[in-house]
Amino acid sequence: MNILGENFINGERSKQGSLTLKSVDAHSGEALPWTFYQATEREADLACRAAEQAFPLFHTTSPAQRALFLEAIADELDATGDDFIQLVMRETALPEGRIRGERGRTSGQMRLFASVLRRGDFLGARIDTALPERTPLPRPDLRQMQRAVGPVAVFGASNFPLAFSTAGGDTASALAAGCPVVMKAHGGHMATADCVANVIVQAARKTGMPAGVFNMIFGNSIGQALVRHPAIQAVGFTGSLKGGRALCDIAAARPDPIPVFAEMSSINPMILLPDALAVRGEKIARELTDSVVAGCGQFCTNPGLIVGIDSPDYRTFLRQMAQNISQSPPQTMLNRGVLSSYEKGLAALREHGGIRHLAGQSQQGTQAVPQLFEAQAGLLINGDPLLQEEVFGPVTIAISVADKAELSSALSGLRGQLTATLLAEESDLPNFATLVPLLERKAGRLLLNGYPTGVEVSDAMVHGGPWPATSDARGTSVGTLAIERFLRPVCYQNYAPALLPDALKDENPLNLLRLVNGVHTRDSLAS
Amino acid sequence: MNILGENFINGERSKQGSLTLKSVDAHSGEALPWTFYQATEREADLACRAAEQAFPLFHTTSPAQRALFLEAIADELDATGDDFIQLVMRETALPEGRIRGERGRTSGQMRLFASVLRRGDFLGARIDTALPERTPLPRPDLRQMQRAVGPVAVFGASNFPLAFSTAGGDTASALAAGCPVVMKAHGGHMATADCVANVIVQAARKTGMPAGVFNMIFGNSIGQALVRHPAIQAVGFTGSLKGGRALCDIAAARPDPIPVFAEMSSINPMILLPDALAVRGEKIARELTDSVVAGCGQFCTNPGLIVGIDSPDYRTFLRQMAQNISQSPPQTMLNRGVLSSYEKGLAALREHGGIRHLAGQSQQGTQAVPQLFEAQAGLLINGDPLLQEEVFGPVTIAISVADKAELSSALSGLRGQLTATLLAEESDLPNFATLVPLLERKAGRLLLNGYPTGVEVSDAMVHGGPWPATSDARGTSVGTLAIERFLRPVCYQNYAPALLPDALKDENPLNLLRLVNGVHTRDSLAS
Repeated sequence: MNILGENFINGERSKQGSLTLKSVDAHSGEALPWTFYQATEREADLACRAAEQAFPLFHTTSPAQRALFLEAIADELDATGDDFIQLVMRETALPEGRIRGERGRTSGQMRLFASVLRRGDFLGARIDTALPERTPLPRPDLRQMQRAVGPVAVFGASNFPLAFSTAGGDTASALAAGCPVVMKAHGGHMATADCVANVIVQAARKTGMPAGVFNMIFGNSIGQALVRHPAIQAVGFTGSLKGGRALCDIAAARPDPIPVFAEMSSINPMILLPDALAVRGEKIARELTDSVVAGCGQFCTNPGLIVGIDSPDYRTFLRQMAQNISQSPPQTMLNRGVLSSYEKGLAALREHGGIRHLAGQSQQGTQAVPQLFEAQAGLLINGDPLLQEEVFGPVTIAISVADKAELSSALSGLRGQLTATLLAEESDLPNFATLVPLLERKAGRLLLNGYPTGVEVSDAMVHGGPWPATSDARGTSVGTLAIERFLRPVCYQNYAPALLPDALKDENPLNLLRLVNGVHTRDSLAS
Repeated sequence: MNILGENFINGERSKQGSLTLKSVDAHSGEALPWTFYQATEREADLACRAAEQAFPLFHTTSPAQRALFLEAIADELDATGDDFIQLVMRETALPEGRIRGERGRTSGQMRLFASVLRRGDFLGARIDTALPERTPLPRPDLRQMQRAVGPVAVFGASNFPLAFSTAGGDTASALAAGCPVVMKAHGGHMATADCVANVIVQAARKTGMPAGVFNMIFGNSIGQALVRHPAIQAVGFTGSLKGGRALCDIAAARPDPIPVFAEMSSINPMILLPDALAVRGEKIARELTDSVVAGCGQFCTNPGLIVGIDSPDYRTFLRQMAQNISQSPPQTMLNRGVLSSYEKGLAALREHGGIRHLAGQSQQGTQAVPQLFEAQAGLLINGDPLLQEEVFGPVTIAISVADKAELSSALSGLRGQLTATLLAEESDLPNFATLVPLLERKAGRLLLNGYPTGVEVSDAMVHGGPWPATSDARGTSVGTLAIERFLRPVCYQNYAPALLPDALKDENPLNLLRLVNGVHTRDSLAS
C-alpha cells in the first residue's frame, strides 16, 4: 500500500497546502504514520474543475462502458490485500469480519449498479411519435430520457469506511448516472480513503475514463467549498443532522441552488404489539438487544426507540432488555469524537427529568457501554426534542403508552425516520393495521418482524425518509433507485435520428423497455 | 356563475378577514363587480390543516378512484358555459380561441393523468423476493412503491389562467399523486380561479373525496404562510425568478426544508445555423416573429434570444426580422403590472451600452409593442446578467457570433433554460452536432426545426431545466412525469400480505408492470 496522503485531482496527486492531518489508530488513539495534506481552496476548485472538464466525455459514455468502469472498481477492490483489511480495522476499530463483509458489499454494490446500467430502465426512455395529421394542431415527435445532472460532491460517512465512503453508494450511483465525483474524504479513515481512491483511479485508467471522473480532497471545513462550487450540481452526504443541515443551507443559498441528499438522523422506532410480547417477549428482548449493540450501535438504522403498550408482558420484556443490555460488553467506537458525542448524549438523557435510566454500567474509559433508558410517553406526544435526537451508539429508549390511541398519538409525534418496525403476531394485525398509514408517512422503510440494522442493497430497498432522516424524502442512498438522485429528464423534440442518443433511436439499439405512445414495449420503431 | 370571492377551506367558503381585493378588466383596467376576501393567517392555517386532515383518506384512495375524481373535474370544466369563457377573457385580455383551447388543454390534462393512474407505472412497484437460504445472510422480502409526499401548496401563473392555475398541471399532478392541494389563487384572475375552484370542489363531492382534498385562498403575501406551514410537504409554482426564489428561500429555511418546484425564467435560445439561413432565412424570420409575438410574448417558452454566425445571410435575416417585428401590432397584456414590467425591461435594454435597438415602435399606451434588439456576443460569453434575464413580453434579442467556436462559447455562457432550439438543414448537422451535448446541459427540452412556444402535454414532454429555468432540474411541470415531483419511495420489508398496498401484493391485482427480482413483469407471484 502506497499511501501518499495527497489530494486526488484530475488523475494526479496534489499537495499545495501547508496544513497536514493525521489519521489515528481507533483503539489506541495514536497517530498513524502517514501524513495527509489538507486541500487548499485552490485545490478544491481544481478538483471541481477537473470533474467539470470530465463531464462532457463521461456522461456521454454508453451505459455499457460505465458498467465496465464500475466492475473494474469492484475487481480492484476485491483484490486489495490483508494489509488493507488490517488498515481499515486500525482506523475504525471495526472487527475483521465486518470489514471483509463491508468490502464485499461495496464491490457488490458497484456490480449491482453495473447491472442497472445494462438493464437500462434508469434511462426512463419515453417516446411520443409525431401526429402530423392531428387537428387542430399536429403533435411533434417527442422523446425523453434521463441524463446526468453534472459533477456531484460526495461526503463519506464515519461508520461505513467502505460502503458509505470513497467507493460507497453515493459514489457508485453518481458514477453510474454519468456524473463525475469530487469526494471529501472522511477525517476518520483517511488512509482507507487514500487506498480506495487509488482503486477508483486505477479502474478509471484501465477502462479509459477521463482523468477527472473521480477526485478526492482531504480536510475538514474545506468540504463546504465543494458545495459552493458552480461546477457541482448535486451533493451526497451521510452524517450528522448538524453537518447535513449546514450543507443544505449552503446549497440553498447559492446563486443557483442545488439538491443535497443528506442522510442524517433517525431513531428507528420499534413498536412491540401485545400478542408478540406475550408469545415471544424474551426472544424479542434478546434479538433487539443484539440489534442495539451490533457494531457498537453505530448504524443509521440502530433501533433507538422502543414503544409498547403498558402491560405485565411489557414490564417483563423491559426487565429482560435491562438484563441483556447490562450484560452487553463495552466496545471501542469509531473514533474519540464519536465516543465523546455518545457520552454527551447519555449525559443529556440522564439529566432529563422525564427520562429514567434502566440499565447499563456507568459510561467511562475509552469504550462505549450499552445503555437502556425509559421515557414518559408524553415526551414523544408533545414533541420533546431530546427524545427525537439520535444518540449515536449502543443506547435505546423505551416508552410505555396506555393504549392503542396513545400509541397512535405517540407515533404521530415522531419526526421523519429511515425505518419503522412492527413486532407483531398475526393476531395483532387486524387490531393494529391502522398504524401502517401512519408509519408510511414517517419512514422510508417499514419492517414487520425484523430488525432495521442490516440494509439490503437491492432494487426494492429504500434508505431514506422524511426530514430529519434525510434532507429529501424523494431519494434513497441505498439500492438501485439511488441513481435517480443524480438524473434529470431531457426531452428531444423533432430531433434528427443522427442527433438522438441511442436510448431514443427508432431501432432501440439498447433493447430498452420504453414507454412508446403510452405503452411499454421493447419494439423497434423502425419500419 | 356564482362568484362569492370567499376562500375555499375544507369544502366550505370562508371570509374571516377584513381586507378585500378586486379583479380588474385587463383591457379597460376597471374593477370587476366581485369582491375577494384576502385570507387571514388563520384561514391559511385552516386550509393547510384541512389538506392535512384529508391526506390519510385521500392518499389511500385507489389510483382508479382518483382517476374518476380527475375525470369529474375535466367534465365539469368542459361543461362551463360561454359566460365563463367571457369572464376569463375579461380578466386576462386573452382571445376567445386561446381560452377555449386552454380549457380543452386543462381538461385534457386531467384526463391524461387519469390514464396515468390507470396505467400505474407511476407507482414504481419493485419486489425483491425473500432468499431465506442465502449465505452468509438471508435476504428478506422487500417491496417498494411510490407514495404521496403529503399536502402540496400550488401557486398559479399569470399567463395561463387555466392550464397553469387552479386546475392546472401542478394541481392535476399533485392530486393524481394522492396529495391534497392548497392553492394560492393568482391575483390576476381571481374570478376565474373562484369558478375553477368551484368546479374542483363539485367534482370532489361527486366522487366522494374528502372535503379538504382541495382548498384555495385569495391574497398576495399570504401565500408565504402556505410554504411555511408544517403540513405542506412540497410546493409547485409558476412565475417570476424573484417570486420563485423567495419561496425557495422560505422552504429551505424551514425547520424541515421541503422541495419547491418553481418554473421561473428562461430566454429560450434559438440557434440559427448557416445552411438553414441560406435556404429559408425569410421563412424562419416569419415563423420566428410569429413565435415571439404569439400571445403577446407571454409564454415561459417565448424565444428571447437569437444566435447566428455573422454572414450576409444572417444580416439579411435580421433585416427581415426587423421588418416583421416593426409590422407586428401592439397587444394588450395580461394586466397592468405585466405591462409595467415589460416597459421596465425594455428601458433597461435601451440603456445598456452593448445593446442596440433594431426594430419596434416606441413603447407607449396601454398595449405592448413588439421589439427587436441586437447585443454583442461578448455580453453572453461574459455572462452579462441583463442578457440572461427574461423580459416577459413580445421582445427578442439577436446576437452575432464570429464562428462556430464563438457560438460554443456563447452557448456555454447561458444559464439554465426551459428550451434550446436548433434551426438547421440536414447539411448543417455534421458540422454542428457537437453543440448538442452542450445544449443538453442547459435545457430541459431540445428542439430541432421547431419553435418552443406550444408545449405538448404528453408522456415525453419536459417543461423544466436547470436554474433559473426552474428551481429543480429533476422535475417537469408539464407532461405525465410531473407526478413524480410529489411522490417518495417507501419500502415494505417482510410485510404481511394483508398489510401490503395493492400495488405490491403477490397477485398483482392492479396488473402493473413490476420490477421483480430485476426483471420487468406483469406476472402474479402467487403460486
